[in-house]
Amino acid sequence: MQLNDNKRISVGLVGLGRLGRQHAENLAFRIPHCTLTAVCSVKEEEVEAAKRDLGVPYGYTDYEEMLRNNELDAIFIASPSGFHCKQIEQALAAGFHVFSEKPLGLYIEEALRVQEAVIRHPNQVFMLGFMRRYDRSYAYAKQQIEAGAIGEPVLVRCYGLDPAQAMPSFLQFAKSNYSGGLFLDMAIHDLDLARWYLGAEAETVWAIGGSHRYPELEQLEDAETGAALVQFEGKKMGIFVASRNCAHGYHIETEIIGTHGSLRIGTIPEKNQVALMDDRGIVRECASGFLERFEQAYVDEVIEFIRCIREDRKPEVTVADGVQSTILGYACKQSFETGQLVAVHHRK
Amino acid sequence: MQLNDNKRISVGLVGLGRLGRQHAENLAFRIPHCTLTAVCSVKEEEVEAAKRDLGVPYGYTDYEEMLRNNELDAIFIASPSGFHCKQIEQALAAGFHVFSEKPLGLYIEEALRVQEAVIRHPNQVFMLGFMRRYDRSYAYAKQQIEAGAIGEPVLVRCYGLDPAQAMPSFLQFAKSNYSGGLFLDMAIHDLDLARWYLGAEAETVWAIGGSHRYPELEQLEDAETGAALVQFEGKKMGIFVASRNCAHGYHIETEIIGTHGSLRIGTIPEKNQVALMDDRGIVRECASGFLERFEQAYVDEVIEFIRCIREDRKPEVTVADGVQSTILGYACKQSFETGQLVAVHHRK
Amino acid sequence: MQLNDNKRISVGLVGLGRLGRQHAENLAFRIPHCTLTAVCSVKEEEVEAAKRDLGVPYGYTDYEEMLRNNELDAIFIASPSGFHCKQIEQALAAGFHVFSEKPLGLYIEEALRVQEAVIRHPNQVFMLGFMRRYDRSYAYAKQQIEAGAIGEPVLVRCYGLDPAQAMPSFLQFAKSNYSGGLFLDMAIHDLDLARWYLGAEAETVWAIGGSHRYPELEQLEDAETGAALVQFEGKKMGIFVASRNCAHGYHIETEIIGTHGSLRIGTIPEKNQVALMDDRGIVRECASGFLERFEQAYVDEVIEFIRCIREDRKPEVTVADGVQSTILGYACKQSFETGQLVAVHHRK
Amino acid sequence: MQLNDNKRISVGLVGLGRLGRQHAENLAFRIPHCTLTAVCSVKEEEVEAAKRDLGVPYGYTDYEEMLRNNELDAIFIASPSGFHCKQIEQALAAGFHVFSEKPLGLYIEEALRVQEAVIRHPNQVFMLGFMRRYDRSYAYAKQQIEAGAIGEPVLVRCYGLDPAQAMPSFLQFAKSNYSGGLFLDMAIHDLDLARWYLGAEAETVWAIGGSHRYPELEQLEDAETGAALVQFEGKKMGIFVASRNCAHGYHIETEIIGTHGSLRIGTIPEKNQVALMDDRGIVRECASGFLERFEQAYVDEVIEFIRCIREDRKPEVTVADGVQSTILGYACKQSFETGQLVAVHHRK
Repeated sequence: MQLNDNKRISVGLVGLGRLGRQHAENLAFRIPHCTLTAVCSVKEEEVEAAKRDLGVPYGYTDYEEMLRNNELDAIFIASPSGFHCKQIEQALAAGFHVFSEKPLGLYIEEALRVQEAVIRHPNQVFMLGFMRRYDRSYAYAKQQIEAGAIGEPVLVRCYGLDPAQAMPSFLQFAKSNYSGGLFLDMAIHDLDLARWYLGAEAETVWAIGGSHRYPELEQLEDAETGAALVQFEGKKMGIFVASRNCAHGYHIETEIIGTHGSLRIGTIPEKNQVALMDDRGIVRECASGFLERFEQAYVDEVIEFIRCIREDRKPEVTVADGVQSTILGYACKQSFETGQLVAVHHRK
Repeated sequence: MQLNDNKRISVGLVGLGRLGRQHAENLAFRIPHCTLTAVCSVKEEEVEAAKRDLGVPYGYTDYEEMLRNNELDAIFIASPSGFHCKQIEQALAAGFHVFSEKPLGLYIEEALRVQEAVIRHPNQVFMLGFMRRYDRSYAYAKQQIEAGAIGEPVLVRCYGLDPAQAMPSFLQFAKSNYSGGLFLDMAIHDLDLARWYLGAEAETVWAIGGSHRYPELEQLEDAETGAALVQFEGKKMGIFVASRNCAHGYHIETEIIGTHGSLRIGTIPEKNQVALMDDRGIVRECASGFLERFEQAYVDEVIEFIRCIREDRKPEVTVADGVQSTILGYACKQSFETGQLVAVHHRK
Repeated sequence: MQLNDNKRISVGLVGLGRLGRQHAENLAFRIPHCTLTAVCSVKEEEVEAAKRDLGVPYGYTDYEEMLRNNELDAIFIASPSGFHCKQIEQALAAGFHVFSEKPLGLYIEEALRVQEAVIRHPNQVFMLGFMRRYDRSYAYAKQQIEAGAIGEPVLVRCYGLDPAQAMPSFLQFAKSNYSGGLFLDMAIHDLDLARWYLGAEAETVWAIGGSHRYPELEQLEDAETGAALVQFEGKKMGIFVASRNCAHGYHIETEIIGTHGSLRIGTIPEKNQVALMDDRGIVRECASGFLERFEQAYVDEVIEFIRCIREDRKPEVTVADGVQSTILGYACKQSFETGQLVAVHHRK
Repeated sequence: MQLNDNKRISVGLVGLGRLGRQHAENLAFRIPHCTLTAVCSVKEEEVEAAKRDLGVPYGYTDYEEMLRNNELDAIFIASPSGFHCKQIEQALAAGFHVFSEKPLGLYIEEALRVQEAVIRHPNQVFMLGFMRRYDRSYAYAKQQIEAGAIGEPVLVRCYGLDPAQAMPSFLQFAKSNYSGGLFLDMAIHDLDLARWYLGAEAETVWAIGGSHRYPELEQLEDAETGAALVQFEGKKMGIFVASRNCAHGYHIETEIIGTHGSLRIGTIPEKNQVALMDDRGIVRECASGFLERFEQAYVDEVIEFIRCIREDRKPEVTVADGVQSTILGYACKQSFETGQLVAVHHRK
């Protein structure tokens, strides 16, 4: 490890929506040995705002133009999901290290194509934004498992519930865009986590769901709240609940049951350490969304990305993790749509 | 309601195992307007101990002989599961009010036969020991749902986990007895609760499981830990996890997710209100078993049974609840054994 | 121990207010080997209701008349605090075993007189209603301490907070009655607990308080919320917070800090095991009052009283506990009224 | 507010101990619009390490020499407590903005002298490191109070407990250094918080304490665990528990009781969101120390300091907060040493 040369990695970021802007601020101010050199968005006002507020020297509305900036070392992709695959391929081809937000892609074929591109560029760092693995609580649970604290993990239960108050804006979005549906869009983090904690791939899945409060979701072939039961290799089990209608906020909870103990992460998705006691009882407010809950993880995953580049090594999250999670997410989607058990065919 | 005549209900109890003995003590000392007049067990020493410690005047080793004691008003059945159906039918035929521990039966046909017997004796009170409905927390959750606190319930998740330290004695038992398997033996309470909270019957089920710590369970066609996903009417959902291998104690947890909120019961199955803070961190000890966790519910269900007799009315838990839960438990068992989706055929 | 003779202890109870009525129901229905034979109250309708509902054969409006009923073995005193001392003395003089609700008395001199009376009747069981010691959580904490779980206890912190919604009725009561004030009336249980857990007596006390929401309490020389710091023998410490204005319900919390760990009891005074998650966040309702929180302890202390009579032994709570707690409560009251440090003079 | 000129504030830091080094890393990598230009320590190896790891251009072993570096805008003081006052005065005199770690000073007179110096330099930003006010939970509680969530605050209870495992190194330190004692050294943050939340100054204090596990602390006129009860203006109350012997880790807990509700911060000082369930029960590990618990607050207070400089305004924490807290801490220390009530004389 040679961290002492103080070489700064120069990053160009594409996508300045809500999460993209947060990444831009992190890259500009919170990541050691990193400089946010360029930003790109189709919305020029977003580009101007980032240049002004964050002191970024270069701004683009054309992604390919940014790729021609030879001051850059790495490309950071935070654009809408439908663009990820193509932008990853272009950036790799142009010789850059690449960080891409999840999901790898919305279709299995394009995910596989990205995997091949990554393999073709073995000297470039590629990292996928499965940031939960870098959350301190999730990372700590992994350490505990590896230290044998719960014996052999046999069942993982994941809740991925988005706040109900975000539903109206999602409905607006979903009417004109393809989100991938509840399981590919939302459960993808949980599918990755289950694979990570169980150390096993999925074999068979059954997924069900319904739209009791917002029946219009059914016309989009989506569900408001869904559940999937997954049989993993070695008779291990996965339970996944996803919803866009969580009244109390953003609820990300994960449990790993082992042969000799269990771990729970985020049982109560508290906003902070404050409890209010009033005539309703004892009230804990909950996290409002992913930027609040995973603020630290969004920073730490990028610190790791920059370190990998500087130390010439690869991150733990691989392109294969993105591919396998996408394949499993698709199986959930297919099971939900057909009502049948679906076998998961991994392509290794 | 005429409670003032102070008529005492005279009860004869069969079965003096661990739970039966607890019921006997409750009937003797903690149930108003009730007298434990007779006890019956094939083990004479249990009969003698109950007579001596609890001041019970009559003791039997022959159930049919007890049924001829005409001082009795009601029969309380706490014998092994395989005897329930026959003993219920005999007691009803002899004109008694009947309380039976769960399950109604281990086979669907016998459960249906009991249902017919109950219907043939409309003036006798019949009650099944789904005591969780009488636990204060479970009853309170039901009230909250009925008051609209969470909107329409759409998903119920139930954990029914027995303490790992009870596994050796279970293995001993299971080698020579038919327990019904994880889903019929253990999940039966949860299947009833899900039906109760959702107000819907099951349609389709998929159940999986494994025996990672005690592989000998596989030879018994049983599982150490299992999970079932159930599609209920109206696209409602049920998730059930059952295990005989819970390291931290007896863990009964239930969650009801509604369109406008959620309720959780027993998230952390604490033994009491004491937290110990020492060099391990903050430690909450857990309940050791069902007699500790549901002590109050075991008393309150019997208070309700005695009240129903005195007030000439029927309890909320009906024989049909026993039948439908047994049918659903069987479907889980069948799915677990075949690996296939199983349709649930209700017989109403 | 000879419990097998099934001798039933015949009890006469005086005082049928809210707590007295609860004790009457417990004595009638929930205490093994006990019969509630007589009740007494100055309010004839309370006597009639208890006879009717609980099947009590004898009713009195004159306490001394009840003491002449020679079917009785024990007298249970649940009358207003001002009557305890005299009624205890009379019952002891008449040869009865005696259980008295707390406090022993409202004045030190009468408490000392009762102590002498108890000493003069060494063959009669006397027990004071410090029921918290019989609560399962409090008893468990004591066991943990005795097992060395926290090393040597050095600081006890006690919260005794009454629900704000009971304030109006208290104000009504306090205008025409002498309650003893916040520290003698409410903190008395906590003062006993601190002595019990620390195994030490108080030396010096400073107590302060205020009435910010209900200033009329100041005219009664009382406080809405008060705090006392007590130096115990051996440089041990006690912190006591008492209030009649707790917005979230009945909050009884106790912490024992030791040299090697700490114990907390009732950190969050939950009503039950239900958590409601809605747009406010995660809400735990709290216990509404002492009858709800200490339901089990009120039963178990009387089970112990009856057992002591049957087994011819003395309870752990002694008359000296009542005397010392009263002396300490008085010191708190005096410090609060004078603003000065007050030395506690124990009379052993 | 003019944040857009992207002027970077150039900072020189003195003190590279454990906390100083953390501040240095924050200043180097996590504070927008800030450059760590110089570091100073009497230990040359600390200076060299910081220059190398953090890319700091200037290093000093002589504080006064650093003050002559005219590239600097601000001085950041993280040296041992005994140096704070003099170094603040020197830095102010040299024309710099100044951030100083707590405490302001170990003696009242020097604190007052610093206050005068700050007043003499009204155009320079001075900020004291009461970082808890910048912790998200503490800041949120303050917002809730200001929004009226608990009515009028009337009692604050603060626990400031250091982990027992840090005791040996403290004992080593204390034998040759003057720490200020338990109340001035450790409770100072809590004294500030109580003043902040109550909006009132202290009037009278009584403090007690003992050293049960490490009696050698008594020879240092210090205590292992201490408690203070403080009467604030308007009959408000403060309870403070400080200890260097907390078995379960670093326990910072604060409660504010108001006339209409209460707030609790950090009831259970969890390390993260992970619960481990094993044969001991449910275990939550606790934070190991202040750097872990207040990581975010240590960053956010400095972000505010830099913003104040850039926006030409003053921080909410004033030098007077430092002076008043020191006066109150001294009163606690004096009461602990004399055993008497001590009146607090504020100098405004």
